Amino acid sequence: MNANVDTFSSYENEVQALREALQNRLAQLLPESHEHDLVCEAMREGTLAPGKRIRPLLLMLAAQDLGCEPDKPGLLDLACAVEMIHAASLILDDIPSMDNALLRRGRPTIHRQFGENVAILAAVALLSRAFGVVATADGLSDTCKTQAVAELSTAAGLQGLVQGQFRDLSEGSSARSAEAIITTNTLKTGVLFDATLQMAAIAAGTSPEIRHSLRCFAQDLGQAFQLLDDLSDGLSGTGKDINKDSGKSTLVAMLGTQAVRQRLQEHLHSADEHLSSACAQGAATRRFMHTWFDKQLAMFS
Amino acid sequence: MNANVDTFSSYENEVQALREALQNRLAQLLPESHEHDLVCEAMREGTLAPGKRIRPLLLMLAAQDLGCEPDKPGLLDLACAVEMIHAASLILDDIPSMDNALLRRGRPTIHRQFGENVAILAAVALLSRAFGVVATADGLSDTCKTQAVAELSTAAGLQGLVQGQFRDLSEGSSARSAEAIITTNTLKTGVLFDATLQMAAIAAGTSPEIRHSLRCFAQDLGQAFQLLDDLSDGLSGTGKDINKDSGKSTLVAMLGTQAVRQRLQEHLHSADEHLSSACAQGAATRRFMHTWFDKQLAMFS
Repeated sequence: MNANVDTFSSYENEVQALREALQNRLAQLLPESHEHDLVCEAMREGTLAPGKRIRPLLLMLAAQDLGCEPDKPGLLDLACAVEMIHAASLILDDIPSMDNALLRRGRPTIHRQFGENVAILAAVALLSRAFGVVATADGLSDTCKTQAVAELSTAAGLQGLVQGQFRDLSEGSSARSAEAIITTNTLKTGVLFDATLQMAAIAAGTSPEIRHSLRCFAQDLGQAFQLLDDLSDGLSGTGKDINKDSGKSTLVAMLGTQAVRQRLQEHLHSADEHLSSACAQGAATRRFMHTWFDKQLAMFS
Repeated sequence: MNANVDTFSSYENEVQALREALQNRLAQLLPESHEHDLVCEAMREGTLAPGKRIRPLLLMLAAQDLGCEPDKPGLLDLACAVEMIHAASLILDDIPSMDNALLRRGRPTIHRQFGENVAILAAVALLSRAFGVVATADGLSDTCKTQAVAELSTAAGLQGLVQGQFRDLSEGSSARSAEAIITTNTLKTGVLFDATLQMAAIAAGTSPEIRHSLRCFAQDLGQAFQLLDDLSDGLSGTGKDINKDSGKSTLVAMLGTQAVRQRLQEHLHSADEHLSSACAQGAATRRFMHTWFDKQLAMFS
């Protein structure tokens, strides 16, 4: 029993240490705040405000599972680049002409703090900075960096986050098939998870077969996250607007809570299997994923 | 006389051929239009609508002057990436929360054709695509590509186009010093010219000294272009809103037309000198620059 407690607390400590390392490195990689530079302040607020850091943690833990040393040079920078892309996408999703959201991470959204034009410019600057961070990361080969830029470009672009947001805007309130919802969910969440896992694999220098298994893992993980997000709409304490999805065509609205929970478990199970194919020792990634979902699902029980 | 006419027409033919090659390659590199994919259509319209193509032409011609074969693989892709960043910045500059412009390149602005949210998503997708195009360009080393990504990231980001737009928004209508206007002009125009010339130098594998001279050349060229832009406000036939700068604190408003024309000539002269330092044979670049400015300035006479 005590041994279990110790293991758990050592695991929590490890994740907490990674989280702090990420926060510090993000703060270094973002431009320093100058007086009157609202865009810079908005970039920092949009990125450094307390967040879950799921994508960069996943990148660091998966890279370890794939054989990287935890302190491999450049790894932290790849993780920060992914978080910057994610932060940019959240800022844009929230602006008035998109979801017009009031709250994010428990704080007023970036456009409400800094104005819409500054929010848009901050998102563009974060996106640009993310690619620059990858291109100038120390300790990674130019081949790794070029591949990582290509992955991030696909994830952020028309076939990734942009398309997910567009479909959500244009189809959200009309009736759609479960299949259409799943495609939009993949675009909104799965593609950046995919790039995240691919960047871990690029840093670790894994084979194409392993990279394929990781793509499948990312798809399942993305679906599970999106289902969790749909389940949590209507709950307070998420730091986001409540009932934002009200009237939207979601799987929860279509299938009911129980069926969605069931689907979520199926995706997690499938994710586990793909992860096992990718790395028999995928212990850190698996533990992180299950700890996270267990904690979140417990909140709805 | 006939020989001169022939040389001129052969020069015009060469530039026209480059322009067509750029147009074709841009059309290939952008995602294909699918029905109902408004973001894709907006990306294509924002990039493929007839434009001056000054930056990509400059990249191709400067690379030739620096010793690249005109058909060096990858060169055209670098040029297209620069044009995509430029197109993205124009789409964003025009949206209601920025300059709220009605016309661009003689057509309704992108947000007026497709809606504001689609315009913003198209700009983000273009920006992302530009980095992907560089990262996957055939025929360039990974080292070249990584350096080119870093240059583009700087030009598009907080210390480049984003900062230029922000300063233009926040300082444009209040009194500012000539120095402040020059800084904003550099950020709005000079930094992307800089990245353009640096990418030509990266493709040609030039020395740091030459790259430094090209940076100085880009600064002067950027200032000259911005002065030309200020001079042309109030003229019809530019394809943009007329008198958009009315009430804005510009050098034309501060110093008068004649003094601005004089400054423009000084910047062109200085640009010539820096270009000579960079490449004694800078004939193609020099000719392009002078032909362009002569033609534009003739319109104001």
